[in-house]
Amino acid sequence: MSPAEFQAPGSTERTRGRRIPENSVTETAALHQVLDAGLVAHLAVVDESGHPYVLPVAYARRGEQVLFHGSTGSRLFRGLAAGQPTCLTVTLLDGLVLARSAFESSMNYRSAMVLGIATRLSGDDELDALACITEHLLPGRWSECRHPSPKERAATLTLGLDLNECSVKIRTGGPDDDPADLLDPVFSQIWAGEVPLQSMFAAPIADENTPTTINVPEYITKWQRR
Amino acid sequence: MSPAEFQAPGSTERTRGRRIPENSVTETAALHQVLDAGLVAHLAVVDESGHPYVLPVAYARRGEQVLFHGSTGSRLFRGLAAGQPTCLTVTLLDGLVLARSAFESSMNYRSAMVLGIATRLSGDDELDALACITEHLLPGRWSECRHPSPKERAATLTLGLDLNECSVKIRTGGPDDDPADLLDPVFSQIWAGEVPLQSMFAAPIADENTPTTINVPEYITKWQRR
Repeated sequence: MSPAEFQAPGSTERTRGRRIPENSVTETAALHQVLDAGLVAHLAVVDESGHPYVLPVAYARRGEQVLFHGSTGSRLFRGLAAGQPTCLTVTLLDGLVLARSAFESSMNYRSAMVLGIATRLSGDDELDALACITEHLLPGRWSECRHPSPKERAATLTLGLDLNECSVKIRTGGPDDDPADLLDPVFSQIWAGEVPLQSMFAAPIADENTPTTINVPEYITKWQRR
Repeated sequence: MSPAEFQAPGSTERTRGRRIPENSVTETAALHQVLDAGLVAHLAVVDESGHPYVLPVAYARRGEQVLFHGSTGSRLFRGLAAGQPTCLTVTLLDGLVLARSAFESSMNYRSAMVLGIATRLSGDDELDALACITEHLLPGRWSECRHPSPKERAATLTLGLDLNECSVKIRTGGPDDDPADLLDPVFSQIWAGEVPLQSMFAAPIADENTPTTINVPEYITKWQRR
């Protein structure tokens, strides 16, 4: 069962970091930072037969909740709205870690996992959630774009998942090599370290219907990856 | 039940692209390309109580199989080895799509989903799989790094998941706006288009134990994101 109230990241039986505990983070601020820095989440949905699916979704954090949406025509999303337990994971890959051994080679990353049961949002609360998702992905866009029509709203299933049971894992820095490899005459001579991975926006590309007199809005040119 | 033999991507009841069918791709070559271009996969594991988890994992494709590994001490990985159904999804985010409406705003992406039951690998087959995973993430590294010791092998649970039931979704290009918005006096004047997202490796950083006389190997300086 999911806790009914907020629990610190990594503090429940299901979220405790047993493997490589030094990568487990328990600060709520870190949970918020990882969720706020991601663009896409991976969402688990289990079907009637018990088979899990992992779907990429747009999302946003609103206070102590993550928000995401799907189609009202989607069998899997209707299952979530009906109370199927779920898990939403956001992973940011920050680099590759090259140890002297294959076993200690790794990745630098920030990852947040949220467990629980989502609830369907409606009315003004749902509209606010849709605004949050647009603003998370496309900051500044909501005040300019056309908001959802009643027909579009009817086709959209918007869900909220409380951040009551989460884990956060963050790995940074170079390899943690086996001390024996650092003394080995062959393996101590291997180049080891990290290769950072960077994500950035390229120049915006206007579509063929945008009047040539319209410049790229300033709010778009300011976007940066975190 | 998962099919016992290879089925074309998107051709089974569970993988058919019902929502936005124009994004569904049925070519096996596209499936391979998406899996080969990703660095991290998101893996679903369902625990004894039926609750799903989504875990980021390193992986590789080997022929018509995806390979990944975890710790033999992990309850969730032992569940997979015991035959729990799973789903492995790889998503590459290629850009943000700004439509005139919030509803049609989207992301450009390439995503592959593999459904099935994984099997545990052993012996030379497992060692080859570990080499594949290292070479997928760190091309050229396997011939230089120290290979797993018997103790490290004993701590590693390596799984293979056949590509028998998959879906591939790819979205490219600008927004698919509601035709009414293109004629609207206000909304037709909004800048719309796409903002590509690029991923690239930064300069390698040697760790403090790498002799200063050792240069970054050429195989590392050649790495590029796809």
